[in-house]
Amino acid sequence: MSVPLHFVVKTRLVEVVEGLGEGAALPPERVLAKEFGVSRWTMRQAIRELIADGRLRARQGQGTFVATPKLVQPLALVSYTEALRAQGHTPAREVVDFDELAADAVLAEKLGIAEGEPVHRLERVLFADGQPIGLETTYLAVERFPTLKEVLDPTGSLYRCLTDQLGVRFGEGEELVETVIATPREAELLKATQSLPMLLLHRTSRDTTGRPIEAVRSLYRGDRVGFRATLRP
Amino acid sequence: MSVPLHFVVKTRLVEVVEGLGEGAALPPERVLAKEFGVSRWTMRQAIRELIADGRLRARQGQGTFVATPKLVQPLALVSYTEALRAQGHTPAREVVDFDELAADAVLAEKLGIAEGEPVHRLERVLFADGQPIGLETTYLAVERFPTLKEVLDPTGSLYRCLTDQLGVRFGEGEELVETVIATPREAELLKATQSLPMLLLHRTSRDTTGRPIEAVRSLYRGDRVGFRATLRP
Repeated sequence: MSVPLHFVVKTRLVEVVEGLGEGAALPPERVLAKEFGVSRWTMRQAIRELIADGRLRARQGQGTFVATPKLVQPLALVSYTEALRAQGHTPAREVVDFDELAADAVLAEKLGIAEGEPVHRLERVLFADGQPIGLETTYLAVERFPTLKEVLDPTGSLYRCLTDQLGVRFGEGEELVETVIATPREAELLKATQSLPMLLLHRTSRDTTGRPIEAVRSLYRGDRVGFRATLRP
Repeated sequence: MSVPLHFVVKTRLVEVVEGLGEGAALPPERVLAKEFGVSRWTMRQAIRELIADGRLRARQGQGTFVATPKLVQPLALVSYTEALRAQGHTPAREVVDFDELAADAVLAEKLGIAEGEPVHRLERVLFADGQPIGLETTYLAVERFPTLKEVLDPTGSLYRCLTDQLGVRFGEGEELVETVIATPREAELLKATQSLPMLLLHRTSRDTTGRPIEAVRSLYRGDRVGFRATLRP
């Protein structure tokens, strides 16, 4: 097997990165290329892969820095806000859209309503320590949560509002995890390039009586976030 | 926001793909480029993204085909063999390596042994219906499983061997899920190009008494596999 040169460079560059420590600035591409005795193009490829892996991080106009470790989020029916705070990070949300639409067949089945019935759609960018890390779209039946628009502060925790103000008791849920390529719109909202791999999660959750609560589609930056699941036989 | 042309083409191409149905051959790149009125380079980019998304599939020397849906694997302490069979697929494994190494600090902690103690390392390519979908490396303490080399058929189910022949009772485990870029060696073993996003899973599992059983690193083709988790509050 022939190993591409940029991969050899990447392996050596990891040692440089580990030596520098979190938050440190990486020397410029042309300096590193000269030091390693390779072309700038080869060095660029190696740096690009370390960015996609979450080891380095490019800040527009400022250069490339050693990244902090990925945020590990629990695969559980917990609030994003609380999960992040429990890890010592500062959560925030920015509302992209909070509107209503008519359920298509797939959404209607997930929410246990008839096709065409109205559904709240809440689309938000999720931030951790001021950086956008995810794009979350939550769908809830208007029939079940008719007062949602009045009681929810859409920049706050939806789960806290559901449990504390609307008396919902979370039972069980299901989450599908896959990798996808972001659309141009999604990449822009997450301030990511389209070539970064993303983690896409599809969630449905039910209350303790088994009644559907929500259907959620969340897209996370694969270079910034990982997930942890508890396994049972 | 400006939408790149290849993305517009990709969106239209999805309709073509859906019209063709699973397993059908995609018309050649140059035919599609002409039909869509775009360059071959633009068409190639659109096709490449649909391959990474798992909608299309390239077969070397044969062209591009409409892919079957991703395999969804449970995030649970179950055998790969049994999970795949339960979904009507044919599992297989190919042994890359079955050897021993001395535990480094990280592995020793995961397995509850002292640094430097011997560990079984079993590296296998996982197949579904004849296609490579994952590369799994399992580490088990030699002290705990001294007869493993004699009793395990390394092409068969490790979990079945552990439970049926070695009396292990699985308790609970933990799995970390992230996206990474494959190394050239990994991409070759999975017959994937390096540009395909991969799902990387790190698992540790314990028996019903809380004693560590294994540490596992598995890399799955993101275009072929997704995972399902059951969520609890």
